[in-house]
Amino acid sequence: MPIEVLDSETTDQRLNQLTQALGSGMFVHVRSMLHDMAASDIAFILESSPPRTRQVLWQLIDQQHTGEILDELGEELKDTLITQMSPERVAKAAEGMDTDDLAYILRSLPDSVFNQVLQSMTAQDRARVEQALSYPEDTAGSIMNTDTVTVRPDVTIDVILRYLRIRGELPDATDTLYVVDKRDSLLGGVRITDLLTCDPNASVREIMNDDLEGIPVGMDDGEVAQLFERHDWVSAPVVEEETNRLLGRITIDDIVDVIREDAEHSMMGMAGMDDDTDTFGPVVKSTLRRSLWLTINLFAALLAASVSNMFENTLEQFATIAILMTIVPSMGGVAGNQTLALVIRGIALGQIGQSNSRWLIGKELAIGFLNGLLWSMLVFAAVWLWKGDIALGGLIGGAMLINMTVAGLAGACIPLLLKKFNVDPALAGGMVLTTVTDVIGLFAFLGLATLFLLN
Amino acid sequence: MPIEVLDSETTDQRLNQLTQALGSGMFVHVRSMLHDMAASDIAFILESSPPRTRQVLWQLIDQQHTGEILDELGEELKDTLITQMSPERVAKAAEGMDTDDLAYILRSLPDSVFNQVLQSMTAQDRARVEQALSYPEDTAGSIMNTDTVTVRPDVTIDVILRYLRIRGELPDATDTLYVVDKRDSLLGGVRITDLLTCDPNASVREIMNDDLEGIPVGMDDGEVAQLFERHDWVSAPVVEEETNRLLGRITIDDIVDVIREDAEHSMMGMAGMDDDTDTFGPVVKSTLRRSLWLTINLFAALLAASVSNMFENTLEQFATIAILMTIVPSMGGVAGNQTLALVIRGIALGQIGQSNSRWLIGKELAIGFLNGLLWSMLVFAAVWLWKGDIALGGLIGGAMLINMTVAGLAGACIPLLLKKFNVDPALAGGMVLTTVTDVIGLFAFLGLATLFLLN
Repeated sequence: MPIEVLDSETTDQRLNQLTQALGSGMFVHVRSMLHDMAASDIAFILESSPPRTRQVLWQLIDQQHTGEILDELGEELKDTLITQMSPERVAKAAEGMDTDDLAYILRSLPDSVFNQVLQSMTAQDRARVEQALSYPEDTAGSIMNTDTVTVRPDVTIDVILRYLRIRGELPDATDTLYVVDKRDSLLGGVRITDLLTCDPNASVREIMNDDLEGIPVGMDDGEVAQLFERHDWVSAPVVEEETNRLLGRITIDDIVDVIREDAEHSMMGMAGMDDDTDTFGPVVKSTLRRSLWLTINLFAALLAASVSNMFENTLEQFATIAILMTIVPSMGGVAGNQTLALVIRGIALGQIGQSNSRWLIGKELAIGFLNGLLWSMLVFAAVWLWKGDIALGGLIGGAMLINMTVAGLAGACIPLLLKKFNVDPALAGGMVLTTVTDVIGLFAFLGLATLFLLN
Repeated sequence: MPIEVLDSETTDQRLNQLTQALGSGMFVHVRSMLHDMAASDIAFILESSPPRTRQVLWQLIDQQHTGEILDELGEELKDTLITQMSPERVAKAAEGMDTDDLAYILRSLPDSVFNQVLQSMTAQDRARVEQALSYPEDTAGSIMNTDTVTVRPDVTIDVILRYLRIRGELPDATDTLYVVDKRDSLLGGVRITDLLTCDPNASVREIMNDDLEGIPVGMDDGEVAQLFERHDWVSAPVVEEETNRLLGRITIDDIVDVIREDAEHSMMGMAGMDDDTDTFGPVVKSTLRRSLWLTINLFAALLAASVSNMFENTLEQFATIAILMTIVPSMGGVAGNQTLALVIRGIALGQIGQSNSRWLIGKELAIGFLNGLLWSMLVFAAVWLWKGDIALGGLIGGAMLINMTVAGLAGACIPLLLKKFNVDPALAGGMVLTTVTDVIGLFAFLGLATLFLLN
């Protein structure tokens, strides 16, 4: 029987079918549809549904799959659903979850519920959780699982093959068995595929890869992701830094999540949004979550207005200046944002360090200046043609040159400085930059105009 | 001998050491340092170096590793280096490359060089390339490799184990053997780990997973990445759509690249940059690459200025209006960009379809209106306090309410409309949105001011 080829439209179609079935009140039908779906598909459908549909769907889901589904959800939605669950249901869901995800969920619970959930767990689960909670968020420890399969260096491959046959199924994404000594120190690894192709009489020591490097448990998860990307790993062992003791392993599926989250963080951050923002979240909650950024922007806009305010005299006498004054900040903002996006990505990829940041700043300054020359000439020509005033063209051109040079410099320096002071450049960079280019742009144009036109 | 724990500072330190060694002209030392490094680390160091350092490093690299290193580089840098290489060297580099990367490199060559490179290849390599070139870019076919290991359903596991031992090493990231019939149609898969744990006398048919779904060769690579993420796959088979014939397989390392590129595309695109922009590229080339976006922005800024121009009378009489007129577009731009980022991410993740886009637009419109109410009151109060003019506060508050409501609507509709017309929302969305919020913001504020103050 030939198997079916994947249909790319499947998920959207399913979503449509579910929505229609819910709309016509066919709850039994919906329940049986949900029963046949994988946890990851249910999670995707929950993510893509408006709040009311979500509530109904969540009621209709089999209780025993709750844990798996929660595993796959984005943070904001996960938090929302968990806070509505009873402690007993959370504890029950916890049974089916990976240790790293369990730790995440427990961290987000209020203290009282946290303790209740812990009480309702079996002793074994409680031990797993306590261990997982001991590693800080966003480190290798927090995305690690403890399901490693270890072997000793002096046994033969044949013994291992027999052991595995008795042991039965291996954990998902197991591509390497780890070789450890008596004190659990990592000595190397044996690839599963090598077990199949090598001589069964060889010893582990003979075929093991002793270049295998352990990831220190405290390493930042973004750095771990870079290592996975660079070395095309499927899984990697995690060790205690001082003793090299094997603590667990990280698998590529968790790394994919880290990469996705970090990349979304940069993109959403530059627009002033959290990367875990729920696309289909409720209105009032969403409104409040976006307020902080708008508050900051109001101050930035008032600051820019107060710069214009300094030149009230000039604006009173020349309405044309007022008409043209938004052009210079706008061009500076766009040019600065280009540099900013490039530098933020470079920082996120770990490309920018001590040895090359000075060169990069110099390069962006040069680009800013060249851009400034180019666009000051163009805007000079445009304004001269439009307003028939060559002096006005010269003024706006001069202001443009100043502002775009500053934009290049600021776009490169601001994220590097923010990083030095441990402020997230993706989040704060855009707002700081736009404020700088607005203020400098207005100051340059209105200042030059006051200097040359008012005398 | 215990193996070393990975040091997170390693790469930056190495880069520093290399830069210093190059600075003092110790080329022999640099060459031997490069000799000991993995291709992926050399690629990373090339990416992180200014052009001059790159040139020197590139000369010092072992010729036989060129292909592997090119594999790992970003597109812009890859193109730059390839155009400087002789066709013979490109052909030689091609020998060490994966088929999918080879196809990419050949696509980017000028026709004359392309033919020269093809001539200098062995017949076998030429066949591989021609096959790879037959699949369009950004499809499953273009990121697929042909190194699948296939078995027949009626043999026993024991036979397979013996076959693998004779065959020797398996391709990287092989976690599944594919089961095919006589006509190479995909029937299912046998996991490598199951080979180790199951009864050797069982037949393939008994232990194979026949739910395994083949990816159609023409599927968009972003959709393939979503499937990998949702199902935590390490590799997946690619099939011809009609016949279900097995053509190759996609591995997680290529998917990680797709995810990284797509996410960077959204982030860089919103700032008007290509995702393959080289952070340390040369100045003049970088300046030119950024011009298009600035040209478009100049037109947008002139459009906004021409709106102000319509209200020259008002601006002539009230300088305060000119001072305050940048606040409304600024707040609208930030609010609209928040919605835009959310919707672009939702589209990229495949969350937004027919069934929920109307709900989403309604939600963002509601958030825009609520935000508008909130901020119109705040800005009303701020302007009243600052300028001591209650009417002026009312005017700017009214304009703010209009502009922020429009911003919410535009932020949701623009990317959805652009997608409908097959324009990339990540690239064009931000510019279209800012133009809308600038024009509507100025029009609302200056229009209301003209209406109420000029009479």
